[in-house]
Amino acid sequence: MSSPASTPPDATISDAGEFGLIAQLEGIFAQGEHVLIGPGDDAAVLRIRNGHVVVSTDLMVESRHFRRDWASAEDVGHRAAAQNLSDVNAMGGRAHSLTIGMAMPPDLPVQWALDFARGFADEAALVGASVVGGDVTRADEVVIAVTVLGACTQTPVVRSGAEPGDVLALHGRQGWAAGGLAVLGRGFRSPRVLVEAYRRPEPPYGAGQVAAEAGATAMIDISDGLVAEAGHLARESGVAIDVRRDAFEVPEPLVAVGAALGADPLGFILGGGDDHALLATFPDRGSVPEGWQVVGEVSEGEGVTVDGAAYEGPTGWTHF
Amino acid sequence: MSSPASTPPDATISDAGEFGLIAQLEGIFAQGEHVLIGPGDDAAVLRIRNGHVVVSTDLMVESRHFRRDWASAEDVGHRAAAQNLSDVNAMGGRAHSLTIGMAMPPDLPVQWALDFARGFADEAALVGASVVGGDVTRADEVVIAVTVLGACTQTPVVRSGAEPGDVLALHGRQGWAAGGLAVLGRGFRSPRVLVEAYRRPEPPYGAGQVAAEAGATAMIDISDGLVAEAGHLARESGVAIDVRRDAFEVPEPLVAVGAALGADPLGFILGGGDDHALLATFPDRGSVPEGWQVVGEVSEGEGVTVDGAAYEGPTGWTHF
Repeated sequence: MSSPASTPPDATISDAGEFGLIAQLEGIFAQGEHVLIGPGDDAAVLRIRNGHVVVSTDLMVESRHFRRDWASAEDVGHRAAAQNLSDVNAMGGRAHSLTIGMAMPPDLPVQWALDFARGFADEAALVGASVVGGDVTRADEVVIAVTVLGACTQTPVVRSGAEPGDVLALHGRQGWAAGGLAVLGRGFRSPRVLVEAYRRPEPPYGAGQVAAEAGATAMIDISDGLVAEAGHLARESGVAIDVRRDAFEVPEPLVAVGAALGADPLGFILGGGDDHALLATFPDRGSVPEGWQVVGEVSEGEGVTVDGAAYEGPTGWTHF
Repeated sequence: MSSPASTPPDATISDAGEFGLIAQLEGIFAQGEHVLIGPGDDAAVLRIRNGHVVVSTDLMVESRHFRRDWASAEDVGHRAAAQNLSDVNAMGGRAHSLTIGMAMPPDLPVQWALDFARGFADEAALVGASVVGGDVTRADEVVIAVTVLGACTQTPVVRSGAEPGDVLALHGRQGWAAGGLAVLGRGFRSPRVLVEAYRRPEPPYGAGQVAAEAGATAMIDISDGLVAEAGHLARESGVAIDVRRDAFEVPEPLVAVGAALGADPLGFILGGGDDHALLATFPDRGSVPEGWQVVGEVSEGEGVTVDGAAYEGPTGWTHF
């Protein structure tokens, strides 16, 4: 196998070759103690102590989920890991392992792939997760496929457990990434705090586990938009959910962006995704843990309303 | 959610929409008893009985790994599942769960996606594995990302355990898929048995576990070519491997293709992949289980030779 050090700084994926690239990627991924067999064999083997595994797969496609001119490779790596780690967070668990499939055009700089991997590994390290395997191949555009494995310390919290009388609560920044995406879409680079929130979300890792221990009845992570995700909870639980506008304090940077773009800043909060905040239901206000903010309530019926009426704003991604 | 039955037969992915498509896909995937939470939540949850999980991820890209005019969607589904199930087979294990990420152009017929899923589910059913989750999104070309999870009944067999004095053995059809690919590449559709072997490989599921129980010292599945995979075993084990031409009986259809294309038919066997046969080393001939064929030997040194000399033929895929 060629020495990783022999790849020149301006090399492409094609120059490095499959095995040269894999050798360099493997050097980036540290392995936790639970990893019995790490990258490099036909499969990885992980020690599982608690009788179950939580697993989720997500795809990210260039131009659709990220743009190389809007975010650094390292940022895209952070985001790719974050959206998967967040799926385990939303079950009330903690991730321990990840795999990455990277389909890439042959003229992609090796440096992009390595920086992506470093960002990915750094985000995984926030929860102590290891990158245990993956695949690289050629494609016309960059497609990133991530699978996350994790565990819960108690019964996983699903989407279908909300009951009439529950309260709806939110944990984490919400609307910031959507605000950042909106300014990037207009060719701006500020407010910087929002652009950074889009480039590198900060999911509230650990908050899912706290919610589960506090008796959350249903939970979901907000990747596609708050109202849209509340809709998933309502449908899966067979209940109605009302979100209240006055529950949200609109942060100053979103107020500024709303004014600059002529948009209702609350629209970023109600319709935005990508922050990977958590949305959960609890039996009553008294059981809502610290750091969570009550933003609505659950009743008999179906569908989602905002202040009792249908929400007319954008409610999230359409994938086709 | 719209009724699956409402999608007309000529509908595209774009017509069906993300949630319409997911609803139809979920209807195809039966869930095993080990699946505590299946598709439809933030993550799936699986019961793990034996303290470990074997995990591997592979990508398949249209035009590169498959062509829609060379194989039916159902065939591509079988192949996508087979190549991942084979990775667990090569550790001496058995798969129990799979996830699929499907990136697809919006004008792809829904029927293609559903037929793919049916082929995938049918292949998974051969080993009793369930499709427990996944993701769908839009891309310019079809990219399929599969992650497989499984378990071993004994110590997993890695690539690095071959010792000087071991024998090299093969289990399963080898070279058939390469022969099928070669005739398809020339615009032919026969010998049909080879074309079918390319379209729908038949990995020797279960043979990996038998080899592990028989004391296999190293094992790998042949996805990129026999000589190339023997090279991985040699390098990871720090040994030399010699493959012997006279160990192989060239099957009649490969003889016919060799004659028609003016190629050495043994080249398909030594250089071909995609059949997902298993290649393993055993301490001696006496420990090689039934169904395995001794094709070479292991000695001190490095690298792979064929009949004691460097192999000049094609040795497998170059991914970039």
